[in-house]
Parts: sequence; structure tokens; C-alpha cells
Amino acid sequence: MGEFDFIEKIRSLCAAATLPSGVVGIGDDCAVVPYGEGGDTMVTTDMLVEGVHFLRSDATPEQVGHKAAAVNLSDIAAMGAIPIGAFLSVALPKDAQGEWAERFVEGFCRTLSRYGTPLLGGDTTSSLRDVCVNVAVVGRCESGRALLRSGAQVGDTIYVTGPLGDSGAGLKVILSPDGERTAEATRLVERHYTPTPRLSEGYALAHSGEAHAMMDISDGIASDLGHILGRSAVAAEVDIALVPTSEELCLEGGRRGWNIAELALAAGEDFELLVVGTERLPSVVDFPLYPIGRIVEGPAGTIKWLSQGVPTQLNLQGYRHF
Amino acid sequence: MGEFDFIEKIRSLCAAATLPSGVVGIGDDCAVVPYGEGGDTMVTTDMLVEGVHFLRSDATPEQVGHKAAAVNLSDIAAMGAIPIGAFLSVALPKDAQGEWAERFVEGFCRTLSRYGTPLLGGDTTSSLRDVCVNVAVVGRCESGRALLRSGAQVGDTIYVTGPLGDSGAGLKVILSPDGERTAEATRLVERHYTPTPRLSEGYALAHSGEAHAMMDISDGIASDLGHILGRSAVAAEVDIALVPTSEELCLEGGRRGWNIAELALAAGEDFELLVVGTERLPSVVDFPLYPIGRIVEGPAGTIKWLSQGVPTQLNLQGYRHF
Repeated sequence: MGEFDFIEKIRSLCAAATLPSGVVGIGDDCAVVPYGEGGDTMVTTDMLVEGVHFLRSDATPEQVGHKAAAVNLSDIAAMGAIPIGAFLSVALPKDAQGEWAERFVEGFCRTLSRYGTPLLGGDTTSSLRDVCVNVAVVGRCESGRALLRSGAQVGDTIYVTGPLGDSGAGLKVILSPDGERTAEATRLVERHYTPTPRLSEGYALAHSGEAHAMMDISDGIASDLGHILGRSAVAAEVDIALVPTSEELCLEGGRRGWNIAELALAAGEDFELLVVGTERLPSVVDFPLYPIGRIVEGPAGTIKWLSQGVPTQLNLQGYRHF
Repeated sequence: MGEFDFIEKIRSLCAAATLPSGVVGIGDDCAVVPYGEGGDTMVTTDMLVEGVHFLRSDATPEQVGHKAAAVNLSDIAAMGAIPIGAFLSVALPKDAQGEWAERFVEGFCRTLSRYGTPLLGGDTTSSLRDVCVNVAVVGRCESGRALLRSGAQVGDTIYVTGPLGDSGAGLKVILSPDGERTAEATRLVERHYTPTPRLSEGYALAHSGEAHAMMDISDGIASDLGHILGRSAVAAEVDIALVPTSEELCLEGGRRGWNIAELALAAGEDFELLVVGTERLPSVVDFPLYPIGRIVEGPAGTIKWLSQGVPTQLNLQGYRHF
């Protein structure tokens, strides 16, 4: 049973309980629960496991703390909502219960504070061997204002908020322990451990009146865009020559012979926003948006890849845990 | 650094962000976030780790799934709120990704359904070795109706909703692998793995007008009652002869030479409700409430133990993870 089969199994088991009107459940960046005049509540949750998402031998505890906060805040950003509180559960083996735990919590709380998010609760427990961290964040937005994955329309342009592939490249650096790291490699590792949640951008996009669908890039756009297309019952054309990449990725990738397009499209964990909207969208926000393609008619969920306008074959998959 | 020191560290780091008016953060069964006319949102989260909270060799996957749902629903019950959605994060090692995962999710979803709670989201990931499960549940109640830990008043009576110690006794049975289990031992193990969240009782108590403070019993009343007393700045007298225990516990405890009072007062995980209110409280609800003591003046957070009215010395601690 693969990860997506497992999620389908969960979804089918829980479909029994019909959701109340206005509630958005499994399948978006956050769940949405309407609270009448009080607005809509968003909830998201993410788990980080030692040996899978981070190595204690490589990441500093502060970096793990930052990332645990940032990936959840990114899901709130992807709805165009404002975070109102975080919940931290942490399982700690004996050798992480002292300095590691303190520094982890410092990194976690510093990032929460930077984005005005109080820690409202959680759970602490021991574990036998590995650190396991789960964070849930609750957010809020005006009633009906959240940008879901299901709103993409034929003719819309597809944008991203920043360069892609750095985080995946950073992970490749971490996993290839070969001597000295260049300045570029060090910067890529940093990007892997300290992603920036695009909260102000997400809020502005949701309030622009020109955006129709949004999500954050966690599995890579090859996989993530498919979710928007599937939920919106449309197809897309994406030009890989338009996908923005950083100078560090190009330099280090050139040195190491990496497939840069594959990293940019499928490595994931960039936590930039993937947003679909009108042609006017970039002119009504005050930060850069990179157009990478457009929404077209076609089989729901399919992407036609182009390279400088010419159709090309790609065989890419987003990251799957099992 | 012990578990409670760690929680203090977290609390002090996050106290920097002053909470908005009406928000209840760390220190109660749930956090409370007001949503104006929409009522108050409650959020709780709990983590279960293999080898610490359950053994895959002993608990069925359905039991682990049930417990993961029940302990969180119990926190919603302890506020007098209604659950509106659950979030499941699960980290699975290779050997749990097939049948174990399916059966776990079946048990989890069955319990959610029984209490009318939809699964609204979550996260799935692999892990290297141990299963780690985190559940967050969001609930709702009328504005200002939640029963906090801080409302106990001198002269109030202290009640519990059912017998205590069975769960802790069940754990002792699990941890002593010595041949045949009696019917009573089997029943105690069942109580350990399948606690009942007291949702309808919690709701009725919060709406009775006669209850002042409430929490669920997760660490044992010796520790849990201390939290109510501390937050309410009062003391208590508890008569251990009044603490209800089951026939199974008495029979099996007699056979095995257990200290039954210690199990009932300090083993925890009973998930009965501990409620403080007026003398009239039992007469306005339609389920049994067992009076075990009363709120008195005295050093905040202290419990004076009695046995059939006579002062007695007890040296008990609730469970601490590290």
C-alpha cells in the first residue's frame, strides 16, 4: 500500500461522516471550518521524523525547530489566512531531552514569534529512539475568503512566488557527505532547513481579487500542480524554461552534474506559493510573481510540459513517503 | 531537565507573545480561541509513541487507533465542548505500512464516527523504526461556556465520573508477561486500551450551571487535581476511601498484591472526568457522580489526604515522561 493509497483509504473510511455545509476537509492545505460572523477557522498539521525529515547529526536543533514551525505556517499562508495559534507535540529520546530539546524549542518559538503566532498548547512525551515532532497551526480568515485548490479556470496564468529546487538540492548536499562544502552548497542546505513561510504574500494574494487557486509547494510542482488541476477539473501547460531557479542551484548543480529541471520541478519542500489567477495578478501585488504556464482545457489533472514553447517529455514524481 | 521543567521552559519562551483577550493557552485541557458570535474554538493535541504508550506486540492496531481518538476527545469532553473535527498525523516504519496501518485507521475512524467527529486532515510519513501518532481535535462551545481548571471555589465538592485505576492496572498486566490472564486481568487491559471519552457527561456538566472547574484524569488525580487547585489558588481534602474502584481492580489487585489506592490515585489514563462544583451537582445530571472530597482554604495546589475521615500520609506522583 503506497502513501497515496493509504490517504485514499483514510478518506473513504471517513467519508461516512458527511461534512457540515462550508466545511473543507482532507485535500487542501488546511481544513476550513466556518464560524459564522467570526470568520473561517483553518487548521493544518505536519509531522517531522528524525532520520526521515532531518538528521540530528546535521541539522542544528534550532533549524529543526524553525522548520517545524515554518512548514505549518506555510500551509496557513497557502490559504491566504492569518495564523492565530500553534500546538507543538514532541517525542524525545533520552539523549535529546536536555540541550537538544531546549535549543529546538528556542528555534521553534523564535519563528512563531516572528510571524506573531502564540504557542497555545501541545504535548511532550519520551520516545525510545527517534525524535518525532508534530505541529498543528490554527488560522483565521474572513468568511469565504480562503483560496482553495479548486478555483483554477481555463485561461488563468500559473505563477510561483520564488525560485524552486534549492531545498531539494540542499538535501542532496546533506546526503552526500563528501568533504568541503562550497558557499553555494552551504546556502542550499540553509534553504533546506530554513524555508520562509510566505504569509504576507499569501494574504495579499487572497485579498487581491485576481487569484483563483493557491497551494504551497511541498512535494514539487509536478505533483502539487496536479492537485490544483484535479480539484479544479482542468489541465495545464507549463514551460520549464520559465521556472525560476537560484544562482546557487545553477552553480552547484553545474559542478555536481545535477538535473536542475528535475530538482526545480519535483524535489519539493520549497514552500513557495503556487498560485493561479488572472494576467493582471502581478500588477496588483508588490512582490514578484513568476509566470510558468497557463490553465487549459484537457483531461483533469494533466500537465503538458513545454521547453521554450516546444513540447517535451518529462517523467517526474513528487516525493512519496511509502 | 524533567518533563515539567521543559514545559515551563516552553511556556516562558512563548509568554513573550501576549495572548489576545479571551484566549486560553498552555495549561488547560484545551486551548480556547473566541470566534465572536460563532462561539469559542477548543483545540487539543496528544501524541502516542510506540514502546512508550503502546506495544505493537500487545495492543491490536484497532485499539491503538481507538485510544488515539479517545484521549483527544476526552480533552474536548473536559471543557464541556463538542468535537467538530479531528486531524491525524502518523509516522509508519516499513513493517507497519500495510495491514497494521489499515487496521489502525479503521479503529481510529470508527471511534471518531461514534462521537460524530469527521476527520478533516492530517499528515502521513514514513519513520525509521517506531510508529508515532499525533492527533489534534478541534471543538466548539457557546461563548464563555467552557469549564476551565481555574474555577474551583472553597466549599465546592470534588467529584469523579467513574472508577479509577483500571487503566493503570491494565498496563501493569501488560508489562508482566506471566502466563494466563484471568477474566479480570483481560478486562483491565481492555480498559487501558479502550478508554471512553465522557463527551455527553462533559457537555451536561458544563451546561448544568452547578459545575465550576473540570479536567480529565490523564496523569492520576494526585497530579491532576493539583492542576485545578493551582490554577484556582485553593487547596483540597480528598478521602481515599471515597475514590471509586472497580470489582475487577479489587479482585486482580488482591491476587497480585497491588497497592490499589496508589493505582486509583496516581496511575492515570482513566479518562474519567474530575469535576468541582456545588453539592447540588449530582442531582441535576442523569449519570452517577462520585464525591471524593472538597475544596478548602490552604496553600494553593495542596491536597490533604484522608482515609475514612482520618488524615493519612501518601507519597504519590503522577506519571512523568522524563
